[in-house]
Order: sequence, then C-alpha cells, then structure tokens
Amino acid sequence: MEWEDLAKELTVSTASKIVLLVIDGLGDLPVDGKTPLEKAKTPNLDCLARKGVCGLTDPVLPGITPGSGPSHLALFGYDPLRYQLGRGILEALGSGVEVGQDDLVARGNYATLKNGLVWDRRAGRIPTSENEMLCRQVNQALKPKPGLSITLYPGKEHRFVVKFSGPGLEDALSDADPQKDQKPRAYTQPLAAGAAKTAEAVNAFLDEVTEILSGRETANTVLLRGFSKFPSLPSMSELYKLKPAACANYPMYKGLARLLGMDVLDVGAETADLFSALEAHYGEHDFFYVHYKKTDAAGEDGNAQAKTRAIEEVDAFIPRLEALAPDVLVVTSDHSTPCLLKSHSWHPNPFVLVARAAFPDDADRFSERACSRGFLGRFPSLQAMPLMLAHAGKLKKFGA
Amino acid sequence: MEWEDLAKELTVSTASKIVLLVIDGLGDLPVDGKTPLEKAKTPNLDCLARKGVCGLTDPVLPGITPGSGPSHLALFGYDPLRYQLGRGILEALGSGVEVGQDDLVARGNYATLKNGLVWDRRAGRIPTSENEMLCRQVNQALKPKPGLSITLYPGKEHRFVVKFSGPGLEDALSDADPQKDQKPRAYTQPLAAGAAKTAEAVNAFLDEVTEILSGRETANTVLLRGFSKFPSLPSMSELYKLKPAACANYPMYKGLARLLGMDVLDVGAETADLFSALEAHYGEHDFFYVHYKKTDAAGEDGNAQAKTRAIEEVDAFIPRLEALAPDVLVVTSDHSTPCLLKSHSWHPNPFVLVARAAFPDDADRFSERACSRGFLGRFPSLQAMPLMLAHAGKLKKFGA
Repeated sequence: MEWEDLAKELTVSTASKIVLLVIDGLGDLPVDGKTPLEKAKTPNLDCLARKGVCGLTDPVLPGITPGSGPSHLALFGYDPLRYQLGRGILEALGSGVEVGQDDLVARGNYATLKNGLVWDRRAGRIPTSENEMLCRQVNQALKPKPGLSITLYPGKEHRFVVKFSGPGLEDALSDADPQKDQKPRAYTQPLAAGAAKTAEAVNAFLDEVTEILSGRETANTVLLRGFSKFPSLPSMSELYKLKPAACANYPMYKGLARLLGMDVLDVGAETADLFSALEAHYGEHDFFYVHYKKTDAAGEDGNAQAKTRAIEEVDAFIPRLEALAPDVLVVTSDHSTPCLLKSHSWHPNPFVLVARAAFPDDADRFSERACSRGFLGRFPSLQAMPLMLAHAGKLKKFGA
Repeated sequence: MEWEDLAKELTVSTASKIVLLVIDGLGDLPVDGKTPLEKAKTPNLDCLARKGVCGLTDPVLPGITPGSGPSHLALFGYDPLRYQLGRGILEALGSGVEVGQDDLVARGNYATLKNGLVWDRRAGRIPTSENEMLCRQVNQALKPKPGLSITLYPGKEHRFVVKFSGPGLEDALSDADPQKDQKPRAYTQPLAAGAAKTAEAVNAFLDEVTEILSGRETANTVLLRGFSKFPSLPSMSELYKLKPAACANYPMYKGLARLLGMDVLDVGAETADLFSALEAHYGEHDFFYVHYKKTDAAGEDGNAQAKTRAIEEVDAFIPRLEALAPDVLVVTSDHSTPCLLKSHSWHPNPFVLVARAAFPDDADRFSERACSRGFLGRFPSLQAMPLMLAHAGKLKKFGA
C-alpha cells in the first residue's frame, strides 16, 4: 500500500489550516564556519524552531540533486521517482505558458541552417529581442490548420516554448534535434504507435517554420526537444481532501501548483505581496503554499551575503504568518543551493513544524546544524505532507 | 524508479577519485563503558570526523545481521535484498576459487556411509590434511568427461568446494544432502526444466566419487549444497561509469570485488601492502575499495584488546590515504562484530565522508556514539554509494 492510497483512505476534511512556507534553495554549507542561515539574524524563525519540532529533509534520496519539479512534488506528497515531469512542461511552466489537457509543449531553439546542415544549434545565441520578434513573425505567418493551433512563446536568447493545441496529440516523440552542430536537420519520430499522427503534424510544422524563416542568414530553422503533454497527476483535493492555494510570484512555481490542482492566487512581484495575498484569501482555503525565491537565486550566484540578507528579509514576515494562527505552520526548503557550488545540491534542508501537538525538541535555532538535532531526524521530503496533515488533525487512525 | 536506474541515468564519468576504506566488523558495543573504537587512540580517524560529515549505517535493515556478501553489496550500491548471492558462490569466493560464467559451484562435505546410510554427515570432522589428500585423490581419479571438468578444492576439516565447468550448466538444483544423519543418500533434483541435464551430471559425479572412496571406512562419500552459478550482477562500470579497483588480501573480498567488475589489485598479506597497492595504482582508477580484516577477526574472537590494537594499526595508515588527496574519502564498515557477541551483528556502523562539499558536523571523534550525532543521521548502507558519487561530482541533477 502506497502513501497515496493511505492518504485517500485516511484523510478527512476539517476546518484546520496548514501554511507551508518554502524558502527556495535555503540549505547551504558553512563558509568560514557558518552557513548563510547561521549567519543571518533570524529571531522569528528561531522562535519557531524553539516552539516546534525540527529535522532535516532529503528531497529525493541522499546524494540525489533534484530539479525544482521533483523537489516540490516531494514536499506536496507526490513521489518524485514515480511522477516525472517532462522537460517541455517544466520549461512551459517556467515561461508562464498555460498548459491544458489538449496541449502538447516542447522546448525550442532557433538554429542556423547553412550548406544544408544545422550549422549552429543556438543561432549564435541571438538577442532575446530578436527572438521575440521572430516568435511574433512565425505566429502570424503560420497557416491555420483544422483542429490544431500552434503558438511560439519567446524565452531568453535562442530559446522558446512551442504549444500545439488540439485533440488527440501524443507526447511519445523523439527530439527533433541533431544534438550536434553541422549535422543534417532531424525530424521527430513517434516512439509509440499512437503518436504517428502527432509526429506528422510536428514535422510539417518544422518544415513550415523553416520555410517562413528561409530568407534569413541566421536563426532560419528551429529544433524541438522534450515533448510533453499535461501530466496526469491526482490533485491535492483528490488525495488529501484539501482546498489548496498557492502564493507564488514566479511562473515555474505557479505552474507546478496548477498541476496539482491548487488555486493560484494573484500575487504581486514583491515579497510582501506573497503575505498580503495569503492574508486576503486566508478564509477561502485550508492549505497554503507560499514560495520565496530570493534565497535560491543568491545561492546560484554564489553570493552568501545576498543569501543571508534574503533570509533576514523573509524572517521579518514570519510574525504575519503567526498572526493568522494556522493550525500547522511549516517552514522548510525544496532543495539546497549552496553558495560554494552555485547550483542545486543534494544536501538536506532544515525543516520546522509548529502545531499544538508538535514535540518541542532541542533545536533552539532554525539552521542546518540545529535542525539536525531535531526530533524528526533526517527524513525524506515525501514525509512532510503526512506530518502536516497529521498535526492538522486531518488524518484518521490506520487500522483498528 | 530504482536507484540503479537513477544511477545509470545520472552518473557521469569524471576525473575525480573516491577512496572507500572498509574496516571490517568495526562497529561494537561498550565493554566497561567504552567500545573498542572508543578505547583506541585514533588521532587520524578523529581528524577525518572533524573535517567530514558523519553518520551511522544499517547494512540491510535495522535488526538484520548480514553476512559479508549482503553487507558489501549494500556499500557498493547493490540492494542486498534484490541481489542474493548463493552460498556456493560465497564459499568458493572465500576459498579463493575463481569462478567464471560457465562454472557451477557448490559447498561440499566429506561424509561417512555405513550400513547403506549416511551415518555421519561430517565424517567425524576429519583433519584438514586428510581433506587435502582426499581432494587430490579424487581430482586425479575422476574420469575425463566430454564438455565437463570437475575440480574439488579442500576447505577446513570436512568441507570443500566443488567446481563443475562446462557449457549449459544450471544452478536450479536441490541440495544433495539428507540434512540429518542416518538417512539414505540424497541425489540432487532439478528445480527447473532446464536443469535436468546438470542434475544428471551432478548425480553421476556423486556416484563416481562414492565409488572412488569406497575402500575407506570414513569419509567415503560426499554431500553437496548451495549450487550456484556466477551471479549476473550489473558491473560498477555499467551502473556508475566508474573504473573501480579493489585492494584486499582475503579471497572472499577479492572475489566479491570481481563479481562487481572491479580490477582486483595484487596485494601482499600485510596491512601496509593494501596502501602500497593503492598508491601504486592510484593513477589508473577512479574508485578504490580498500578492505581491512583484522577488526572483524578480533570481534569474532571476542578479543576487545586485539580489536582496539587493530583499529590503532589501521588509524596509522590514514595519513597515507589523505596524502593522495582523493576527492572523496569514506571510512566505514560493512557490518558490526561486537566482541560481546563474537559474531556479526545488526548494530550500525560508524561512517565518515570527507570531501569539499561535505557538511562538517558536530561529530568530533570517529566512534559509534560520535557518529550518531553526525549530519547524515542513521541511514541504510545502500545510500553510501549515491553520497560518494554526489560528493565526487559524478551525479547530474534529477529532473528540471
């Protein structure tokens, strides 16, 4: 019996409320003896650590560095080794492209054809403004097709997302990408019998775009990779009988929340907007996912000072969460982003859960080291959701 | 998705190097308040504990006492509950018998036939020298067979290993052993259709040997158990893209390493020889397994003083490992062998990992108790391999 089956059987809808604050990429390594979190002045987070029960989480498995997709899925109780999201769908979500049940998306590159070969798979990394102009031009020039609409969404430099919309599209398709420069153009191949018609439509599109761009010296063809349909995940309402909402201001996290059936609240670009949205809609939902991004960005930049400042910024908003008096308040991270590595990593994440029935352990600060002494020990992120539901009184007894 | 599939997908070959020192049977229980490891003066191991990240490992599951096979498989990232090595193959490896793809091996006993019954299954535990003489006699007397060669390898007292070599041999065979004294002789039965011919050959061998030994009063027949072919395990190169080498001077550990596709280095009998072999071949491989046996032997003898001395002996070699400056250095054990129990046990093993991105935790000594306060917490040995690969920069990100 899997956790999901248990969840469906044991969860009950109650009036209690859960708030989960995800401080993205929070976990780190010591620099001159202290991690950015240990250096930060975090009186409010430390107060939570003293009141609550603490631990350290592994997003997927010890040693495995997760992308944002798997690490968030785990936090919401979806086994990331079971539910794997295609690259196309994540790129689309990250670009703010809305994806529905009838849509097929893929990551695209503008590329340069020369001497009949794909001479440069990135078209010399054309400026983003040129990319935007090309996407507009192609979108306007594409001929209407019965039962199929195609739209390009510009990304950074040579990158874009393409969305095919229509009934019967399949994503069992190989990449339409020669993978190396100075190779012939590659068409997509169906990887399952049912995908043959979709492959035909995609390949016709590749030829049509190449025709549209044929007057150009560079960026005169496109490559497509990571074809993905809208993944069929059970919603959080189905699994947990929750009415969940997301407070996030980056497209990727809004998109992920939408995949799980959360209501994505309208949130402005500032950190304060996350908390204002939460306060404004607090009566309407029973589970709130709040996503704070700056810590991850600072980690990716290798900027420990900026990370410490970002941590102090979010710490100052903790009293506003407490003022709402949620039945369960959890602060943790999706994955670590150590400044030393300037990238996501496999290191564990601090975790604190405050609730009436939380065991107040010896962790007296909110930090990697202090949480390692917590009562929850080191545990998979996948267990965060059962713990939140249990402390919120939303999980019945298993067996008699 | 299993760890093995993840490993195949995520591992990359890099120049970084991993050294894994296994101090066999290291974990113990306190005797007069201290474990042999706590009593030992281990300045070098303690220094590793202060620099690195520590934890305690469970080889299979808490409470499960592993043999050397499962406990080593787990350390190398092979789920010991999935890959079970036959007793015949382990006995053969332990006796230094080389086993190849076309070989079938089994454990044998010399036994005594009397009044038409297997009167004594151990032939009165004949001296090892008599066993050696009998094996020579049988090996010489066996008639040549087309496409099949058979060799006996003497063990201690009444025990030997037999190797059948030839195409098409199968190991789905029941034991040729009445299991109790004063029962009729037992022949092997095929446990799968494909094993019928092998069973015939084995049973003909049993009759031939009994005929050869028929002039004797004792040790005048043989019993065979645990028929095993060379197990088909994926190699460490297949799974992890590593070029692994083993520095071990006991046959069992060399054999295990060979099963996983490691290059088994020529190593002399002394402890120093393990480290000299490592140094001599350091340029040729990227993963080194170093096996130190004396701690386990002392534990099996219940000799805590000898165990403490053995620990101090290996501690003195740590600086030679550090001088090589491997990217990842791990010191741990395969299983515990507490002096109190004089046998392998289920108790966890101290674990330390030193690497650039290892979190230096509060463990300030290399001991069972200090490692229990380490950042890695208590974890299955199966996670040692992902942790080593991650810290060596040999694991790509999972998902986007």
